[in-house]
Amino acid sequence: MKELLNGTISSPLGFKSNAMHCGIKRKRPDVALIYSIVKAQAAGVFTANKVKAAPVIVDMQQLRGNTAQAIVVNSGNANCCTGKRGERDAWKVVEAAARCLDVSKADVLVASTGVIGKFLPKEAIIKALPELSAGLGFDKAQETAGAIMTTDKFSKQTAVEFEIKGKRVTVGAVAKGAGMICPDMATMLCFVTTDACISAKALKKALASAVDESFNCISVDGEMSTNDSVIILANGLAANELIKQGTPEWNNFTAALQYVCLKLAKMIVEDGEGATKIIQVMVEGAGTKKEACQAAARIANSLLVKTMIAGENPNWGRISACVGASGARFAENKLEIFLQKKVVYKNAMPALKTSETLIRLLKEKNINITVKLHNGTYSHTIWASDLTAEYVKINTEYN
Amino acid sequence: MKELLNGTISSPLGFKSNAMHCGIKRKRPDVALIYSIVKAQAAGVFTANKVKAAPVIVDMQQLRGNTAQAIVVNSGNANCCTGKRGERDAWKVVEAAARCLDVSKADVLVASTGVIGKFLPKEAIIKALPELSAGLGFDKAQETAGAIMTTDKFSKQTAVEFEIKGKRVTVGAVAKGAGMICPDMATMLCFVTTDACISAKALKKALASAVDESFNCISVDGEMSTNDSVIILANGLAANELIKQGTPEWNNFTAALQYVCLKLAKMIVEDGEGATKIIQVMVEGAGTKKEACQAAARIANSLLVKTMIAGENPNWGRISACVGASGARFAENKLEIFLQKKVVYKNAMPALKTSETLIRLLKEKNINITVKLHNGTYSHTIWASDLTAEYVKINTEYN
Repeated sequence: MKELLNGTISSPLGFKSNAMHCGIKRKRPDVALIYSIVKAQAAGVFTANKVKAAPVIVDMQQLRGNTAQAIVVNSGNANCCTGKRGERDAWKVVEAAARCLDVSKADVLVASTGVIGKFLPKEAIIKALPELSAGLGFDKAQETAGAIMTTDKFSKQTAVEFEIKGKRVTVGAVAKGAGMICPDMATMLCFVTTDACISAKALKKALASAVDESFNCISVDGEMSTNDSVIILANGLAANELIKQGTPEWNNFTAALQYVCLKLAKMIVEDGEGATKIIQVMVEGAGTKKEACQAAARIANSLLVKTMIAGENPNWGRISACVGASGARFAENKLEIFLQKKVVYKNAMPALKTSETLIRLLKEKNINITVKLHNGTYSHTIWASDLTAEYVKINTEYN
Repeated sequence: MKELLNGTISSPLGFKSNAMHCGIKRKRPDVALIYSIVKAQAAGVFTANKVKAAPVIVDMQQLRGNTAQAIVVNSGNANCCTGKRGERDAWKVVEAAARCLDVSKADVLVASTGVIGKFLPKEAIIKALPELSAGLGFDKAQETAGAIMTTDKFSKQTAVEFEIKGKRVTVGAVAKGAGMICPDMATMLCFVTTDACISAKALKKALASAVDESFNCISVDGEMSTNDSVIILANGLAANELIKQGTPEWNNFTAALQYVCLKLAKMIVEDGEGATKIIQVMVEGAGTKKEACQAAARIANSLLVKTMIAGENPNWGRISACVGASGARFAENKLEIFLQKKVVYKNAMPALKTSETLIRLLKEKNINITVKLHNGTYSHTIWASDLTAEYVKINTEYN
C-alpha cells in the first residue's frame, strides 16, 4: 500500500466533483456534489444518536439498494429536528439531483451539516444543482473539500493505492471535522471513493470495521452528533477481480480503507476546536474490550485531563481519578500510568522523582498517555484533542 | 422544619470546632478540627471511585464502629495515590488527634483535599493539633468553613431545626466545593452535625438517601473525585426519643438532612469554577429511573449545552442531540424540550416562532431545561453549572 502525494476523492478512477456557493452561508461555498461516472456499490455508517437528521434517515433507506452514483452535501444547515418536512425537503433534493444528473433517484445520497432545528433552504440547493452538475470535473476535489468545511481550519483529504493481481486499486477520502460548532454545528462527515471492484456486502463490512478503528476512536468534546455519516462508493473501474471477504485481497482493501479513515480521523482531532495537542490515550491489560474502551474514553473525555494537557501540566492524579471512575477493573497496586512513555505511577505510589524531563516532554504537540491495568489482555486506543479556552469561546460566543 | 439564620455546624448542641494555618498551603488556613463534646453515632458516604484516597480508606474502616467524636480535615494535599505510606500517614494523624483530645483512637476521622500523588505533610498537621484542640470553641464554625475551602469563592454552611415531641432537634452542615482544581484539586467534602438521638443504622440510611438526592444530583465538570466524603455525627444531646426508621420522626429527620444537603449541593454548583449560571436539568416521563438519570446527566455534563447556557444561546438542538445520545428510550415525535419553561421542540419540529422572549429569559442566572420523554413515569433532576473560559483557565494555568 502506498499513500499518494496530494491524494483526493478523485484519485480513484471515475470520480468527479464540484462545489459552489448557493446562499445558505453568507459567502463561503456551501454545497458540493460528488459523482461517479458509473453506478457504484455503496455503503454507509451513520450516527448512533437516536435523534437522526433527515439526510441520515434518507440515506439509510437509499442504501438498502446497495448502489449510489452521487452525493449532494450542504453545509450551514443540518436539516435535523425538522420532522417530516425535513425528510420531504431531503427527498426533493434527491429528486432534483437525479434529474440534473440523469441518474436513478435511488442512486442519490444527501448529507447536511450545520445548525439543528432550522428548515433546510432546499430551494437554494435545488437552484444550484444544474450549475453544479454541468461543472463536475476530475480537478474539483480541492474545492469540494473546502465546501464541506465548517470551522475546520484545513481541508482533510487523502488517498492510497495498492495492487490486486496486477491491477492498481485506489481509495480516496475527504472529511470535515467534528467541532460540533454553531452556526455550523454538529457533524463529522466523510466520503470515501474507490475504484475497487467489490460487492456491496463486503464493502459494508469493511467500512464498519474501518470506522470502528478510526472515527469511533477519536474525541474532541465527547459529543455525539445527529448527522455523523461515513459513506463509501466503489465503482469497480479498477477492473480488479471481485474482492471477496476473507481473502488476502479483502485484507489489503480493508487495510487501505482503515488507513485513509484513521488518517482523516487524526486530522479531525488535530483540527478540533481550539485544540493545541493531539493526545493518544492507550489502555492496555483490560479484562474485557469494553473495559478498555470505558477507561480510554473516560480519560479522553475528561475536562481535567484535557485542560492539564493544554497546560503542559504533569498532574497525573487526574488520570488515575479517571481510571478509577471508569468502571474498569484493576488492582490499585498493579496499576501503571505513563506520560510520554515515562512511568509516573506504579505500586500505588508516585513513580517519578524529578519531573523536569516530563515537563519538557509535555511541551511536545503529540502526547501519549498509557495506562496498564494488568487485569487481562484487552487494549484500546483513542485519539483526543486538548481543551482550551478557545474551544469554550467558539462554542459560547454565538448569536 | 425551620432554616436558621446563619446556621453552622455549631448550631446543634455540643459541637465545637477550630481552624488554623499549619503550613501545607502558603498562607491560608489549611487544617480544621470538628469535635463533639460527647461521643456521637456516625456514618459516612464516600466516593465511588475505585481509586480512593488514604483518608477515605481509613474512615471507611473507622466507621464500621458506628461512632466518632472528632474529624481532622486538611486542605492543600489529598493524600491520594500515596500507597501504604499514605494510609500510615493518615493513621498517624488519627493517633495524634486521639491523644490531644483524649478520645478513643477509634473515634477520630480524617479528610483531605488537595493535590493527588504527593505525600501528606503529616508532621505539620500533627504539630498543629495541640493548638487546634486547645482552641476548640462553639464560635469557630466560620473559621472552620473557611479553612476547608480551596478555590471556593464563598463558604458553605447551613442549619435547620425541627421538633420531636417537644424536643428541638438541629441539623447543621458545612461543605467545600467540587471544583476539582489544582493545586487544591479534586474533592467535595461535607460534614454534617446533629444533636439528634438516632441509631447509627438509621443514620446511615438517612444519609445515603439524602446524598442520593443532593450531592449525587449536581455536576460541575462531570469528574469523580478520589476524596469525596460526606460524614455525619449525631451526638444525641437534643435528648429526643430515639429516632427509628419508618416513623414520622425519621421522616422529619430525613427531610431536614436532605434539606441541608441539597442547599449545600446547590451552593457548590453556584460556586463551580468559572460558573455564571445554575442550570436545573429536569427529565420527565422516562421508562426507568436509570434512563431519566442517563438523559439528565448527558445534558448536565455536555460541553455544548454548558457553553450554550454560558453564551445565553437558545440553540436547543444541542439538548436534543444529548437526549438522543443518552440511551434513554423515546419516540422522536413525542419528545418535548423546554427552555425556561417555554416549549422549544415538539412534534419533531421547532416549536417556537420568535425567540426574542427566550433570549431575554436566558439572561437570568437560574436556567431551567426540561425534557419530557413521554415514555413512562420516571423523572430525575440535576443541578449543573455552565462552562466558561474561566473554568478552562483555572484548570490549565497551573504550575
